[in-house]
Amino acid sequence: MIKEDAVNVQVGDAVFGGGEVILMAGPCAVENEEMLYLTARSVQDAGAKILRGGAYKPRSSPHDFQGLGKPALGMLQRVGKALNMPVVSEVLDTRDVEDVAACVDMLQVGSRNMQNTALLKEVGRSGKPVLLKRGLAATLTEWLLAAEYIIAAGNRKIVLCERGIRTFETSSRNTLDIASALLAKERSGLPTVADPSHASGNRNLVAPLGMAAIAAGLDGLLIEVHPAPEIALCDGKQSLELEEFALLARKIMALQAVS
Amino acid sequence: MIKEDAVNVQVGDAVFGGGEVILMAGPCAVENEEMLYLTARSVQDAGAKILRGGAYKPRSSPHDFQGLGKPALGMLQRVGKALNMPVVSEVLDTRDVEDVAACVDMLQVGSRNMQNTALLKEVGRSGKPVLLKRGLAATLTEWLLAAEYIIAAGNRKIVLCERGIRTFETSSRNTLDIASALLAKERSGLPTVADPSHASGNRNLVAPLGMAAIAAGLDGLLIEVHPAPEIALCDGKQSLELEEFALLARKIMALQAVS
Amino acid sequence: MIKEDAVNVQVGDAVFGGGEVILMAGPCAVENEEMLYLTARSVQDAGAKILRGGAYKPRSSPHDFQGLGKPALGMLQRVGKALNMPVVSEVLDTRDVEDVAACVDMLQVGSRNMQNTALLKEVGRSGKPVLLKRGLAATLTEWLLAAEYIIAAGNRKIVLCERGIRTFETSSRNTLDIASALLAKERSGLPTVADPSHASGNRNLVAPLGMAAIAAGLDGLLIEVHPAPEIALCDGKQSLELEEFALLARKIMALQAVS
Amino acid sequence: MIKEDAVNVQVGDAVFGGGEVILMAGPCAVENEEMLYLTARSVQDAGAKILRGGAYKPRSSPHDFQGLGKPALGMLQRVGKALNMPVVSEVLDTRDVEDVAACVDMLQVGSRNMQNTALLKEVGRSGKPVLLKRGLAATLTEWLLAAEYIIAAGNRKIVLCERGIRTFETSSRNTLDIASALLAKERSGLPTVADPSHASGNRNLVAPLGMAAIAAGLDGLLIEVHPAPEIALCDGKQSLELEEFALLARKIMALQAVS
Repeated sequence: MIKEDAVNVQVGDAVFGGGEVILMAGPCAVENEEMLYLTARSVQDAGAKILRGGAYKPRSSPHDFQGLGKPALGMLQRVGKALNMPVVSEVLDTRDVEDVAACVDMLQVGSRNMQNTALLKEVGRSGKPVLLKRGLAATLTEWLLAAEYIIAAGNRKIVLCERGIRTFETSSRNTLDIASALLAKERSGLPTVADPSHASGNRNLVAPLGMAAIAAGLDGLLIEVHPAPEIALCDGKQSLELEEFALLARKIMALQAVS
Repeated sequence: MIKEDAVNVQVGDAVFGGGEVILMAGPCAVENEEMLYLTARSVQDAGAKILRGGAYKPRSSPHDFQGLGKPALGMLQRVGKALNMPVVSEVLDTRDVEDVAACVDMLQVGSRNMQNTALLKEVGRSGKPVLLKRGLAATLTEWLLAAEYIIAAGNRKIVLCERGIRTFETSSRNTLDIASALLAKERSGLPTVADPSHASGNRNLVAPLGMAAIAAGLDGLLIEVHPAPEIALCDGKQSLELEEFALLARKIMALQAVS
Repeated sequence: MIKEDAVNVQVGDAVFGGGEVILMAGPCAVENEEMLYLTARSVQDAGAKILRGGAYKPRSSPHDFQGLGKPALGMLQRVGKALNMPVVSEVLDTRDVEDVAACVDMLQVGSRNMQNTALLKEVGRSGKPVLLKRGLAATLTEWLLAAEYIIAAGNRKIVLCERGIRTFETSSRNTLDIASALLAKERSGLPTVADPSHASGNRNLVAPLGMAAIAAGLDGLLIEVHPAPEIALCDGKQSLELEEFALLARKIMALQAVS
Repeated sequence: MIKEDAVNVQVGDAVFGGGEVILMAGPCAVENEEMLYLTARSVQDAGAKILRGGAYKPRSSPHDFQGLGKPALGMLQRVGKALNMPVVSEVLDTRDVEDVAACVDMLQVGSRNMQNTALLKEVGRSGKPVLLKRGLAATLTEWLLAAEYIIAAGNRKIVLCERGIRTFETSSRNTLDIASALLAKERSGLPTVADPSHASGNRNLVAPLGMAAIAAGLDGLLIEVHPAPEIALCDGKQSLELEEFALLARKIMALQAVS
């Protein structure tokens, strides 16, 4: 497998794997530039280093909001530049990799596409840092092999992201598998973060699971934040409000001091 | 959801959902034209109506055989034409849909790409019959919503394929979920088949699971067959030899008579 | 492990593993002697060889009907004797094994107790034939090791029963794992049957899954039957009516002729 | 369901649910009195409030060490008394409940017996505090209903213990489901702890998962500790050495200060 010396992955000023906890935060989907800017400033003030925001959304139903697409990329780029904050956004289609890579600092491959091998090869070729989410039912080995597709295309700038696996338990959306995330980090040498928003699907569980992931030794968190979750176009139930995120960020800082 | 009147899906002379069991068989991957022709003739003689064969292979590891690609499409087209046998093959990349659609009679969307929404939209637009495999960890609802992506793009010629779900049990590769396949058929009105080769990953279990699927009332089977499984470039362990397939086909015919 | 030569297990006149499909049928719980007698006569006429009926019910909630207990054992014994039909019933508590064994012909260990090692040892010591259900989340290996507890106590008269495993899919109650049942039979040499009633939790799926299990080569079925499922004290949703069972039994016989 | 006001459960001087993290530690199985005493003193010095130790072991195979049984109960009682340290131990058989309850301060119901309803009723009647482990494949609801069996028998002194659920992932023994543990605590009002030793089956993961559970807000940990894990009669691979436990206990204390 891909084990080498542990590597750091730099995205803008943020260094994954260097010992500091990296918080990535922002809305599930970019809805308009104002809300994006507002959210970005707030999470940056609270300590987030990277802005997340979806332009292309891989929804289970074709009748759900699919993202603003290309216009959202421009908004992400402008807001990121204005705040000097690197941006991560998901790409779904091999034909969009070039466009997305031109506008953002880090490409996200989502869990539904973790074994979309054509896409893995293409993001590998792009040379951009990649946030590689674990598939919903991917074994540890399959997750690392997906990373290997990107590496084989010449790109080692990969941050792994555990976002919950599908189990029989339905009281939370998925089950955050911290043990596998730790093993993924150890075996691959790649920085590894957690996404407690998608893992839980429940705003009340985001902070406790985020704390758990950092206390266990992971390198950062990806968190959905929305200024008004009750009217969000997607994933409102699991989005933190701006103040909730700020509170979590403070707790993470305190935790980091003792871990 | 997508429930309407039950629909039949025609591919060449084969009609899915019309009461006759449709067998699709052939090698996991097209390795060369001779072996493809040999296999196709043998499975056709045994009763298979459709030839399967992979040109693009979505392998877990980038270091495994990825398929012959475009040259394999030509082989499939020529062998299909020579034997007057329609052909199904998997497409992995939105950029390849047009090429694959030009050469085959039915497009397969594999389990790894069941939620590759860009690909679903593109095969929908192609207008070709689609064999839509269930994702390894897709719920019944998610599977039907994936079909809905294709329908929303204007294409109702969909055959659903249950190929085993991921469970805790590792003694077989996956667990064939016949109950969900029956419910998928009932709820969507779409013909539904099973793939006991991928479900089991074990040659000895292919025939029993295939019999089980047909006895339960499914519309057909997708079976991997190879003239010399021990030297197959992929999935040899689960491929039937030519005679094993012929034997299974005879048993399926006898079963059909009493079901 | 426990592999030896394949063994047959005889319960009254029924021989498991001897090539004939054995149907066990009856109500989830014994509710009163009349309904038990009525059901037993009907399923026997239809071809069932063994009467099932619960005296002690392991319900998820303490507020659900727990079975009639000891009085039900007497009813089972009298009805079985009157019809010359062997009886299988579940035992839950080591302290009850002697009483239950005195009244029935086969002891059932339910899925919730598959790793209740004290109970396994006690039913082993009883010397009675045992119907050992697979635990909801038991691997094939653990299931065979549970059988090994009974064997280690001196009793090889074991029939294994696959009753569905817990998976992420919730459209049916559990997922019938036919592949593991076949492997269990092969590895242990023990007769192996399926319980499509508990696997599906849905009356409409019982017959198709039962057909599937027999077409795959299993040795029999355990089926819940109730004269009036809509007023059953437990598991009414998955119980077949008397005529539905008779129809299934006829289909099984026809299937057996071609398999 | 069983929700009432949150309750504290007192075992000796330890109060679960009162805000202090309670550590329970000791060997998987009691092997002899010397090792038990040695381990107990060490974990007590490090901060553990309760001694754990198995007298009756529910092993998957009948050929594995089944525990010393009754003699181990005497050892637990004497060591607990000598150190003024309450003791928790598992009971497997309804016939043993009285004996075990006479010797220990808290009865453990293990995951294999979470739906052994006869046992649940009997530990309920005993009136002793109960440590109720979640079954390997028990849903949150089923876990709480198991607690309800104990409550219905008149005993509310229950501490819930999450010990990992069975999932498709096999790189760790099970998957620690922190989200469900938090929801169990919230819905039932019962104190809830985690067992990272059984969840991971891997000594290197015990401390990180233990930290995660406490950072998320759970009430305590159950940890296997052995003076010489490499010669332990059971579960050596997941047992911490005495010093490893002391280090974890210090980290937990520091964590508690910031949470």
